[in-house]
Amino acid sequence: MRGSVDAALAEFFASRREITAAVGGEFQTAAGRLEDFVLRGGKRMRPLFAWTGWLGAGGDPDGPTAGAVLRMCAALELVQACALIHDDIIDSSDTRRGFPTLHVDFARKHRESDWHGSAAEFGAAAGILLGDLALAWADDMVRESGLDAAATTRIAPVWSAMRTEVLGGQFLDITSEVRGDETIDAAMRVNRYKTAAYTVERPLELGAAAAGAAAELIAAYREFGTDIGIAFQLRDDLLGVFGDPAVTGKPSGDDLREGKRTVLFAAALAAADAGDPAAASLLRASIGTDLSEAEVTRLREVFIRLGAVEEVERRITELCERARTALDRSSATGQAKRLLGPMVVAATARTF
Amino acid sequence: MRGSVDAALAEFFASRREITAAVGGEFQTAAGRLEDFVLRGGKRMRPLFAWTGWLGAGGDPDGPTAGAVLRMCAALELVQACALIHDDIIDSSDTRRGFPTLHVDFARKHRESDWHGSAAEFGAAAGILLGDLALAWADDMVRESGLDAAATTRIAPVWSAMRTEVLGGQFLDITSEVRGDETIDAAMRVNRYKTAAYTVERPLELGAAAAGAAAELIAAYREFGTDIGIAFQLRDDLLGVFGDPAVTGKPSGDDLREGKRTVLFAAALAAADAGDPAAASLLRASIGTDLSEAEVTRLREVFIRLGAVEEVERRITELCERARTALDRSSATGQAKRLLGPMVVAATARTF
Repeated sequence: MRGSVDAALAEFFASRREITAAVGGEFQTAAGRLEDFVLRGGKRMRPLFAWTGWLGAGGDPDGPTAGAVLRMCAALELVQACALIHDDIIDSSDTRRGFPTLHVDFARKHRESDWHGSAAEFGAAAGILLGDLALAWADDMVRESGLDAAATTRIAPVWSAMRTEVLGGQFLDITSEVRGDETIDAAMRVNRYKTAAYTVERPLELGAAAAGAAAELIAAYREFGTDIGIAFQLRDDLLGVFGDPAVTGKPSGDDLREGKRTVLFAAALAAADAGDPAAASLLRASIGTDLSEAEVTRLREVFIRLGAVEEVERRITELCERARTALDRSSATGQAKRLLGPMVVAATARTF
Repeated sequence: MRGSVDAALAEFFASRREITAAVGGEFQTAAGRLEDFVLRGGKRMRPLFAWTGWLGAGGDPDGPTAGAVLRMCAALELVQACALIHDDIIDSSDTRRGFPTLHVDFARKHRESDWHGSAAEFGAAAGILLGDLALAWADDMVRESGLDAAATTRIAPVWSAMRTEVLGGQFLDITSEVRGDETIDAAMRVNRYKTAAYTVERPLELGAAAAGAAAELIAAYREFGTDIGIAFQLRDDLLGVFGDPAVTGKPSGDDLREGKRTVLFAAALAAADAGDPAAASLLRASIGTDLSEAEVTRLREVFIRLGAVEEVERRITELCERARTALDRSSATGQAKRLLGPMVVAATARTF
């Protein structure tokens, strides 16, 4: 499946070469950079969920519409390219998928070429425009996927909702951070729209809509997708503080340093406010600051002592149970249940 | 026409309220800001050209498809909103349409709310995400316009080309500036894609495609649109250096201060390199610097003396003549010819 997604994306990029060559110059080169960025990888989770949603609704992988559905699924990677490229500018991130982020790469090119003006500003400008291009091309790829008119009509509202929701979730995320939102509700809202709807719920629904699934199956997918998507994010939040950097690939505690308003943090703060003013002060004074390793270790102990870790684990278990029930009771095909089941396990499993 | 475009946009924004309210919080407020930005104005040039292209190909303003075509035309304003919002971040512009730019407005809100972190970075982040939202919504608005399947199929490649071309043109523009491109060819390429294709050529073609116009009329529109679009930009370049700030609304000479690589500048440089090394040095030393009013006055004299103004005027005349011939010879309706004709005059006319 991953190979087929890559092939569909490569074919799409090839189809854009005529127009990028016509515009020419540095734009042609830059479009090649975008292609490298997309084809270089990622886990292809969203196409995988969309494809599984389609299979689970009876889609035939050897049937005549499979190619068109695959292209529609692959287009999700172009939305994701926009989200990552723009997010990396917003977060001032330097690396992505083991390579320099796109804006950092263009800033480097500016410096090496001894161009005029600010290298950082040029890098950001290039990243903004290439993210826009990825977003515009995502729509082109769906439109040119070859889905028939009826399927196109069915997926349209899902595609539309997904894009608005992920941008909405990102917007809530940046405002939560600067406002210093402290409630579990605010953190859950970001998880819901930035992660769950965009990564699992809407992709599954897209696949189901392409297959013309019944409303009952779509409702089950959406419940499964929301719950599993949020559970994933909660697990990710725990790993961000307690994970082994050798496994997670990023320094433990970075979420705290960046001031990320996670459910874990909100739960700890709620507990501290209820009975441990010293811990509450420590948490508020620590978030978003350049914490040492020793300070992160101390915060880990505080999270455990306040019961915040337990609280998040409890939520994960509950979400996974609900997701499994929704899946089991649904009319999804046995194959889809076999594919989606392990996701529940993956979300539940501790890897620290 | 302008009122109808505004009404269609207002109706579209109203249709997004359900989902922005569901995501909620600051996102809902921010979506309102985007709506204000779009409804506050602009000349609606692109919808106007698209609508005129449709009329000229026989579209019936009282017929059953007029409403759908109007919505498709109005969607161009959402692409334009993305272009303006992102351009203002890229250019660090503070004002737009007489109001603070969107990113400046969000930075102000950050400061007034006493939020954490950098106000400027928050403003840019908000602007990036709202520009993305406008771009995604532009596609939604076309998809939901109500155009029939055949018309949708006809406009798809035009819509797709237009978005890639404008992003390509913007990309060439930012690279030309940092590279200090000196050729007329490089400047013309930016004019072609960033301005002409996006503002006139493709909008006219979109309207024609919606009407199912013959290939001959589409070719005539494209020639007219490219020529008039470039002529407009050349006139704008002249006004940027010689225009009366009271008329143009921006300080004269700002193009020079910003280091914009216009055809006017490239023509002056080519003439200077051919026989006036002192003028060439002056031009290269002046571009992109914080010029005084006296220095701008001196550069104006240099542009005139080198024949660059004459050269640009000659190009404008030539482009307008060619555009008029293409229009006159085309099968466009008399009404469309009457509407498009004055454009030629407007592009030719000096306003300084």
